[in-house]
Amino acid sequence: MQRTTIEIETNGGGLYEVTDDVARFVADGRDSSGLVHLFLRHTSASLLIQENADPDVRRDLQTFFTRLVPEGMAWITHTTEGPDDMPAHIKAALTQTALTIPIEAGRLLLGRWQGIYLFEHRSRPHSRQVILSLSD
Amino acid sequence: MQRTTIEIETNGGGLYEVTDDVARFVADGRDSSGLVHLFLRHTSASLLIQENADPDVRRDLQTFFTRLVPEGMAWITHTTEGPDDMPAHIKAALTQTALTIPIEAGRLLLGRWQGIYLFEHRSRPHSRQVILSLSD
Amino acid sequence: MQRTTIEIETNGGGLYEVTDDVARFVADGRDSSGLVHLFLRHTSASLLIQENADPDVRRDLQTFFTRLVPEGMAWITHTTEGPDDMPAHIKAALTQTALTIPIEAGRLLLGRWQGIYLFEHRSRPHSRQVILSLSD
Repeated sequence: MQRTTIEIETNGGGLYEVTDDVARFVADGRDSSGLVHLFLRHTSASLLIQENADPDVRRDLQTFFTRLVPEGMAWITHTTEGPDDMPAHIKAALTQTALTIPIEAGRLLLGRWQGIYLFEHRSRPHSRQVILSLSD
Repeated sequence: MQRTTIEIETNGGGLYEVTDDVARFVADGRDSSGLVHLFLRHTSASLLIQENADPDVRRDLQTFFTRLVPEGMAWITHTTEGPDDMPAHIKAALTQTALTIPIEAGRLLLGRWQGIYLFEHRSRPHSRQVILSLSD
Repeated sequence: MQRTTIEIETNGGGLYEVTDDVARFVADGRDSSGLVHLFLRHTSASLLIQENADPDVRRDLQTFFTRLVPEGMAWITHTTEGPDDMPAHIKAALTQTALTIPIEAGRLLLGRWQGIYLFEHRSRPHSRQVILSLSD
């Protein structure tokens, strides 16, 4: 099993594409055909496979989650880490912390319109670690 | 690693069972004990493990998602592909693009009430590809 | 592939930590570096990686899901198994049935603030089976 960790610097809520980082790691094991696994080591951001064509899709996704889980909901008790922290945990629970994607001959078998994204849910800049694991 | 791609023809939003297709693929590798991985190559449909007994469960699931993410939300900007497209992306983000299920001796280790479903979120007929990968 | 099944006794809705159970299983294969896969054999509970520090986070998560998917929604048709059953299936669809986590030298590569939880969605006590699979 090959493994690496990538760091993504985020600067506020939204989707950050990591498809190229994952593709580069996968291409290193050129004749590998198996699965690549992504694991995010944080609970206030998530991983998502989404449309890579129209950037409006990413903006609308972010808007939906902000409207579904707004800051300032009166019943929230976990407020010590700021008004965006508990909504971030909820958005993470509604999406994924880990993804597995098939690969063939060192290439991701994504559909034509699929990109891999880190979905940041916190407002301030963060450094996010994603562990990539390649298995046959 | 064994791999195949299955195609599912959908005809409007709802849950389409694929348990038998996956079970057949897994049974081919008769003494295999490992994991089967499903990957959907689309961003406006998803994969779901859900109750396989009462069909009302599937209908209610679809109703919930349609009410949570209705067509025609005023703030949506991605409208060029039709009123059902952006809601479809959001529903996909709230569910899964990939699933991994344990197998033993060529048999899926699903619980008694679990079935595997493709969850179509678009209104018009679509042909959906799911990549199945079997690993020891 | 090593495999085991753990049973978790739940006593009403909420998050039950299983990190230690998974860590113990992973530690048995001391020099294993690979992935551990968790699979829940039920459709009215789910698996979640969430913050393991402030217990308020878990309480707020449960509150959010109860408010998003309350009992007694008028349009529900699947009511034969009690008022908490269909909401439980919906909450399961919004979260995960399976998780995969990287391991190194018999240790889970979780982030510092990550714990693994069974998220029970039913009101009455249940016995929940989780299949753990360790692959290189």
